[in-house]
Amino acid sequence: MKLQVAIDVLTTEAALEIAGKVAEYVDIIELGTPLVKSEGLSAVTAIKEAHPDKIVFADLKTMDAGELEADIAFKAGADLVSVLGGADDSTIAGAVKAAKDHNKGIVVDLIGVADKVTRAKEARALGAKFIEFHAGLDEQAKPGYNLDVLLSAGEEARVPFSVAGGVNLSTIGAVQRAGADVAVVGGSIYGADDPALAAKQLRAAII
Amino acid sequence: MKLQVAIDVLTTEAALEIAGKVAEYVDIIELGTPLVKSEGLSAVTAIKEAHPDKIVFADLKTMDAGELEADIAFKAGADLVSVLGGADDSTIAGAVKAAKDHNKGIVVDLIGVADKVTRAKEARALGAKFIEFHAGLDEQAKPGYNLDVLLSAGEEARVPFSVAGGVNLSTIGAVQRAGADVAVVGGSIYGADDPALAAKQLRAAII
Repeated sequence: MKLQVAIDVLTTEAALEIAGKVAEYVDIIELGTPLVKSEGLSAVTAIKEAHPDKIVFADLKTMDAGELEADIAFKAGADLVSVLGGADDSTIAGAVKAAKDHNKGIVVDLIGVADKVTRAKEARALGAKFIEFHAGLDEQAKPGYNLDVLLSAGEEARVPFSVAGGVNLSTIGAVQRAGADVAVVGGSIYGADDPALAAKQLRAAII
Repeated sequence: MKLQVAIDVLTTEAALEIAGKVAEYVDIIELGTPLVKSEGLSAVTAIKEAHPDKIVFADLKTMDAGELEADIAFKAGADLVSVLGGADDSTIAGAVKAAKDHNKGIVVDLIGVADKVTRAKEARALGAKFIEFHAGLDEQAKPGYNLDVLLSAGEEARVPFSVAGGVNLSTIGAVQRAGADVAVVGGSIYGADDPALAAKQLRAAII
């Protein structure tokens, strides 16, 4: 199972600082949506230039103009770009076309999708490299939120998948047991007092 | 009915050029999602500084972290920020909170939402200033696409609403007759040989 750090900060400088601390322990460096919107795709270029050996994930959460948005992100240096599961099939297909042109990959993010298992299978059939079973920051903040629902859905869908939604040191084992290909960790790394130590411990927890 | 130009170009320079040509004929200047992702929120700031008397709409299509994304867009100079109708209620509510803090507004974009009438009412109840009945660029490109479905839904929802989905000189009359508060025109202005003339004609078509 790969380890992906989701860097949800608002400046390229802060993202570079965190990436510099944790890169050696992670496989995929994700630039969060607010960061891309705040700084633009130059943030993606900066991270890729600083970490050319890492997989760089631009969390665009594309909802329309799939081919265009994916194309400009790949040109900026992204290796993976996210498209929303709620997007039209043609948007996902357009983004996949751009990915094929660049020999890169599209991740379909199921945030907000009610029937995640069905949509995961559809998105995989449309050409997504893997599917992200994802509960957003706003959803995680609600009472009663539980990661298990995502893990069960991921397990059931039988597609390559990642899990994002408050994964931390106490839950990463369950993520791996559910068969995830990628564990996405955000706040538990970038919000830690010692991000490098947090990433190192998470890496060590993957068997 | 207000006229909104959606500027779907990829550089701040190109956006400023089009805005400069058409501003006198429009009420709202929208910076498209690919532009914001490409250039960052500095594009919003540049347009607002060049056109302080216009309503500047940042088409963030926010899906998560509603309060955060809206807050940074308002701070950058936006007067209106879009949140996806497919987002969690808490995401819309968070964005509305940021709008109230800045005395600005949230537009909920119904792109990709199946039951647009129901979601429009819910989004309005959550505090959206108006609701955008929207067919995306990818959806418009599909065979059989027809603006009438959006207009009927907007009329039925009985909320303040805008319409976006290939509005042009031959359809803007129908948009107004459906009771829209805002007509959103993209390609028919920014893609015209003479954007200023196109905007002037669209303005003149509003009674």
